[in-house]
Amino acid sequence: MLIVQKYGGSSLRSAEHLLNVARKVKQAVDQGYQVVVVVSAMGDSTDALVSLAEQMSAVPSAREMDQLLSTGETQSSALMAMALEHMGIPAKSFSGRLAGIVTTYDYGKARIEHVDPKELRNALAVGLTPVVAGFQGITEAGDISTLGRGGSDLTAIAVANALGADRCEIYSDVAGVYTADPRIVPSATPLGTLSYDEMLELASQGAQVLQTQAVEFAKGQQVPIYARSTFSDDPGTVIAEADNMEKPAVTAVALNRHIAKIGLIGVPDAPGVAALLFGQLAEHGVNVELIIQAVSHNQLNDIAFTIEEQDVRRAEPIVEDCLRQLGGQSLVIDTDVAKVSAIGSGMLGRPGVAARIFQALASQGINIQMIGTSEIKISCIIAREHAEQALEAIHTAFGLGASSEMVEE
Amino acid sequence: MLIVQKYGGSSLRSAEHLLNVARKVKQAVDQGYQVVVVVSAMGDSTDALVSLAEQMSAVPSAREMDQLLSTGETQSSALMAMALEHMGIPAKSFSGRLAGIVTTYDYGKARIEHVDPKELRNALAVGLTPVVAGFQGITEAGDISTLGRGGSDLTAIAVANALGADRCEIYSDVAGVYTADPRIVPSATPLGTLSYDEMLELASQGAQVLQTQAVEFAKGQQVPIYARSTFSDDPGTVIAEADNMEKPAVTAVALNRHIAKIGLIGVPDAPGVAALLFGQLAEHGVNVELIIQAVSHNQLNDIAFTIEEQDVRRAEPIVEDCLRQLGGQSLVIDTDVAKVSAIGSGMLGRPGVAARIFQALASQGINIQMIGTSEIKISCIIAREHAEQALEAIHTAFGLGASSEMVEE
Repeated sequence: MLIVQKYGGSSLRSAEHLLNVARKVKQAVDQGYQVVVVVSAMGDSTDALVSLAEQMSAVPSAREMDQLLSTGETQSSALMAMALEHMGIPAKSFSGRLAGIVTTYDYGKARIEHVDPKELRNALAVGLTPVVAGFQGITEAGDISTLGRGGSDLTAIAVANALGADRCEIYSDVAGVYTADPRIVPSATPLGTLSYDEMLELASQGAQVLQTQAVEFAKGQQVPIYARSTFSDDPGTVIAEADNMEKPAVTAVALNRHIAKIGLIGVPDAPGVAALLFGQLAEHGVNVELIIQAVSHNQLNDIAFTIEEQDVRRAEPIVEDCLRQLGGQSLVIDTDVAKVSAIGSGMLGRPGVAARIFQALASQGINIQMIGTSEIKISCIIAREHAEQALEAIHTAFGLGASSEMVEE
Repeated sequence: MLIVQKYGGSSLRSAEHLLNVARKVKQAVDQGYQVVVVVSAMGDSTDALVSLAEQMSAVPSAREMDQLLSTGETQSSALMAMALEHMGIPAKSFSGRLAGIVTTYDYGKARIEHVDPKELRNALAVGLTPVVAGFQGITEAGDISTLGRGGSDLTAIAVANALGADRCEIYSDVAGVYTADPRIVPSATPLGTLSYDEMLELASQGAQVLQTQAVEFAKGQQVPIYARSTFSDDPGTVIAEADNMEKPAVTAVALNRHIAKIGLIGVPDAPGVAALLFGQLAEHGVNVELIIQAVSHNQLNDIAFTIEEQDVRRAEPIVEDCLRQLGGQSLVIDTDVAKVSAIGSGMLGRPGVAARIFQALASQGINIQMIGTSEIKISCIIAREHAEQALEAIHTAFGLGASSEMVEE
């Protein structure tokens, strides 16, 4: 049985941590597994390199940034191979290049084009444990490019898929995927199982356990992911195809405090208005999530939408320009909002889930400003001051977490 | 005109130092030179990596050590390219692999097999300033291997040769090659010119300005080397073919305090004795330098030789074993010695140089224990307590340095 184990930076933040991880790998090898290890850079070593780069140039070249940052993972992989060898496990470090990870030219946010696992297979065939530097690949021209923050997850899943591994284990300092962020909702508990789609919705709603692209990749290739803690033997969360699982209405809740609401008041109710506005925003790389258009009165409309708070500075002049062009009345930018989301593939074709969420918020006196839904997700925009309270209320309403009373559908 | 500029770790020990070097490169580019930059790792960053490796394993694998240590130069090259770009000099970092530096498989002490400068030429052709990570190359199998400490000198000279550069400038924190170590002989001055052979003798006698292998490479390919200081505009020392230069009898003096003298007393005066002894030592990798065999009396001989002090522990049991086999009388190991050497291609065919050295030492009351010579070098083994005094005496006797009175041949 072949497993890929990926260890994140917080699991590798000191020499002692590296040795601890090596012992975990050895344990799996001693149990008879074939193991491929994928490692991130040690602790916050990447931040130190970024700081050096910023002292060289206000806007360092993306190519050079990738040459620089990829060294962190290269160091981890060599050190881990040394530690394993010392523990009697023959090992060999692999750069992204040696591991056959061919990437696009988008330095800093490259995608994996394909993985040629020939060298990894050769190593496994002669009894070596490969240790792959995560986060990095190589372009067709032979330049190193990186996959963006969290890209080591993607490396691990792509390698697992290319090798036909039985599973991919993602180790971090949390014990899997929780029903809610345990720092906000103390009764939150780790989920036993989760579908790829649920994980994708959770990740895009602000839960930072797994990189979104990595989950998409795993979904496409049906690689089961085990999200586990480096520091415990808890089983963690298995992310796999939904069909194999029981389906509660809501699996987990997520909170995103880093959003902003933008409202255009009194714009003409005419064709092409939305096309102009959202076309301009998209052209400037501003991602829009929820959109509400009020019912028209006197041939005038109100349009409201949400964006990431960090995009406000970029969006403001674009929206002001559109408002002028359209002859609208005024602009409202509200950064005092938050988004709470309930996710569950069990809500598919099950009525009453939205109503129960609205009721949970109403019972706390929390006003809902906007609502957005997908097939397996319901999101509400509320005042930021109620964010934590709202999250906990929905968490409780669906009987999630440890000490809550179960509520049956 | 194409020049290769190599900057050592002490010239790159902080962000400020990196920016200072970038300004020096920019100066050369602004003057109309095509420049290829070769960089070492920043300051003592390599030591930090070695320390981490030693925490992983008492004897880290040489391959993994090379994967690890090569990251230091990769980081420097990316940072330098960023700094140059920021100063308006289009630049591109090159790993040893991208620069086409193909090395042997001797991890940690690889030799350069050949350099394929295609990518470097392409970059120069489009007006880019290449910044090459020193110290590293790639084996035919695609593994990174390193050239050993000081290997960035070799990278620079090999690249200069492959590109047919007009010269190779080696920058460090000293202003060239001195007539003697200025920490020992305060009147020592930088030499204007030096032949490859003189530089080789100096380097092998303990002067640590340039890596020996690099000088050998430059000699073979006739690449002129300019050894200069990063921190001044002094002209430094030019190392080139001897024919072009004036030839004083002695160009420079060198001191090696890290040697030991081993004496075998009363061994039979028979054929094969030296063959057994030095054959055994060579087989165990112990390098022998000076050898003296006393004139035989009563069919018994004394044999004395010098080795590096760090090899004494390895040599001792071998020599003891030989002494037993030969039925010799006793063994003397003396680590209380030093070697002073005078080097100059001008001593070729010029009598009286040795006599003047012996006289200089005698006038200080310093006893000479052993003497060794090559065509352009005379070395004396003396008591270690007189080492500095001897060096200064010879330095003065040949009129070297700033404030000494010139002594004409």
